[in-house]
Amino acid sequence: DQLQTICGECKSPLVARYDLKKIQKKYSPSQLCEGRGLWRWAPLLPVRDAAYRFTLGEGDTPLLKVESIGRELGFQHIYVKDESSNPTGSFKARGLGVAVSRAVELGVHNFVIPTAGNAGGALAAYAARAHCRADVYMPADAPASNKQEVQTLGANLHLVNGLINDAARLAAEDGKKNGYFDVSTFKEPYRLEGKKTMGLELAEEFNWSLPDVIIYPTGGGTGLVGMWKAFEELEALGWIGPSRPRMVVVQADGCAPVVKAFEEGKERAELWSDAHTGAAGLRVPFPFADRLILRAVRQSRGTALSVSDDEMRTAQVDLAGKEGIFAAPEGAATLAALYKLFSNGWIDPKERVVLFNTGSGLKYLGWGNAG
Amino acid sequence: DQLQTICGECKSPLVARYDLKKIQKKYSPSQLCEGRGLWRWAPLLPVRDAAYRFTLGEGDTPLLKVESIGRELGFQHIYVKDESSNPTGSFKARGLGVAVSRAVELGVHNFVIPTAGNAGGALAAYAARAHCRADVYMPADAPASNKQEVQTLGANLHLVNGLINDAARLAAEDGKKNGYFDVSTFKEPYRLEGKKTMGLELAEEFNWSLPDVIIYPTGGGTGLVGMWKAFEELEALGWIGPSRPRMVVVQADGCAPVVKAFEEGKERAELWSDAHTGAAGLRVPFPFADRLILRAVRQSRGTALSVSDDEMRTAQVDLAGKEGIFAAPEGAATLAALYKLFSNGWIDPKERVVLFNTGSGLKYLGWGNAG
Repeated sequence: DQLQTICGECKSPLVARYDLKKIQKKYSPSQLCEGRGLWRWAPLLPVRDAAYRFTLGEGDTPLLKVESIGRELGFQHIYVKDESSNPTGSFKARGLGVAVSRAVELGVHNFVIPTAGNAGGALAAYAARAHCRADVYMPADAPASNKQEVQTLGANLHLVNGLINDAARLAAEDGKKNGYFDVSTFKEPYRLEGKKTMGLELAEEFNWSLPDVIIYPTGGGTGLVGMWKAFEELEALGWIGPSRPRMVVVQADGCAPVVKAFEEGKERAELWSDAHTGAAGLRVPFPFADRLILRAVRQSRGTALSVSDDEMRTAQVDLAGKEGIFAAPEGAATLAALYKLFSNGWIDPKERVVLFNTGSGLKYLGWGNAG
Repeated sequence: DQLQTICGECKSPLVARYDLKKIQKKYSPSQLCEGRGLWRWAPLLPVRDAAYRFTLGEGDTPLLKVESIGRELGFQHIYVKDESSNPTGSFKARGLGVAVSRAVELGVHNFVIPTAGNAGGALAAYAARAHCRADVYMPADAPASNKQEVQTLGANLHLVNGLINDAARLAAEDGKKNGYFDVSTFKEPYRLEGKKTMGLELAEEFNWSLPDVIIYPTGGGTGLVGMWKAFEELEALGWIGPSRPRMVVVQADGCAPVVKAFEEGKERAELWSDAHTGAAGLRVPFPFADRLILRAVRQSRGTALSVSDDEMRTAQVDLAGKEGIFAAPEGAATLAALYKLFSNGWIDPKERVVLFNTGSGLKYLGWGNAG
């Protein structure tokens, strides 16, 4: 019942814990899942008073069968979890919706965030919904859609000459100076809880089993860590068994700190210098939750790999033209990764594979033509 | 069981009819409404074989309470039906999803469409999903997002120097010459059926009653006519009573053929010359279904009014900054209309009012700054 940030001692991320025994006694899966949208999972989320569950219709994104490409590869069970139907057109709505809700419940009125683009738009939307102030620090070379979205939604946009870690420094300073609550990735425990709902939905959609492989485009990595947490909680509730999907991290060739650490067998990532990729959400040179990401990938017997911007472009055109899904480059990266993992035999054609499209291709106009 | 276009004799739109008595015997409302998305209404839709129900996750868009603006005006029950969460970011997904599905079920492989922008993107997506060819005729001054979307989704984009009625002529010629199925608004009966689901969802969301007023941005008018048809069918099924929302047509000052006909007491609209507005979806100088639109507005004791682009811009900023909803200019036009209908006392503050946001503000980058 106190506003939390990071651990005061070790400076690592904090995570929320629930009385799962109590939830187990009170709800069956079907009771918990009634209704629509992210907030039907409220007993597993950190907001207590329903009056603070600010909503713009987030969650319950479609799980789409990928039939044509599957047929070409000889795969039978490929799916896209299409997060582009969320408010502000990206998966960031889940985390920021919950983070704003819980922080406002605990008395916050002013927010600050560093962002590659989409998280800023999501914060701006939920801050507006909750009548709060939001200050958004964004690299100046972020997509135009992200800038206009933040401004139209009434937030204060600060363009930064640099990368998201530079934006993070400035946002932290602003937050400290003015007493704004910093909702940077993993600098508070509530965004993770919102992202967790992607894992809860998948479990329900696969009828309380789980897919065999999840391929996830990893910038800050909240979604991957959040899903991993969701699976742990669902097992503790007795709703799923101990088996887990193999979690696959996809990054861009031009910014792959987690892939490098994974390949080198390290527990922590190093700052990636000269980060560059058109997939703005993957231009994260140092993910703060590197340890949690690497742990989930290794525990799941997953893997980490990078793809080039050209491979993303080819995959984006495939996903659009063959399946009708106009994905963000980050989402397209998961299909590019699937092609590689198919070629090297890492995935069996009978396995059930979920690709995460984290946002709408509409937010990256001109990207397909850029150099 | 035959592919239909318009009436061979009077050249007017055709509409689908169902054996509602049979449906009434077979389903209760809750049985029909199980599951998620547009296709849960399948018994009231024209596609017979489930294998042809192509889906990208359309429908079940959120109904969002408009609290802050409502409080300012003294209204208690204002809602936005937010169609921007549909695939391709607009309400057009509903109509084209159903039209492509039914046409493919009846043997069509090639589609052609004239579009202000969003319908082209939606056709491109569903044609890709169904492995069909699509040719899209779009005014050259349509938003950039619409052009890129159509191209990435693999359709053939033809830019037209002119308005949507010029595009319609070229599309019809292409269709006739090459045997492509023309899915222009109201030139075939299936798009209307998809749009109808907006009315079905509203009835369910208002617990089988209906709101008092629906404010709808009207270009081609399929959605308004579709909802009207939905209400008729639901009454025939005995699921709702005879009362209807007052249907309000909103158009742009620079292109308001239906408003003009309504004010002049005419049954038909006239071609609007020199049509201009930044709200691309309202730049429809002659809606083919003028009679059906005007009939629904008058039968419902509704009204028709136009708003300026400046009023749309102000409303867009209000909806974004006060409610967190980044609406398309067409959607913002409904709030601008609400302001007017509040000022002149046409709406009572106790009435339940639904505004339709037909698409995402993300598809109109730069519009807010344009002249």
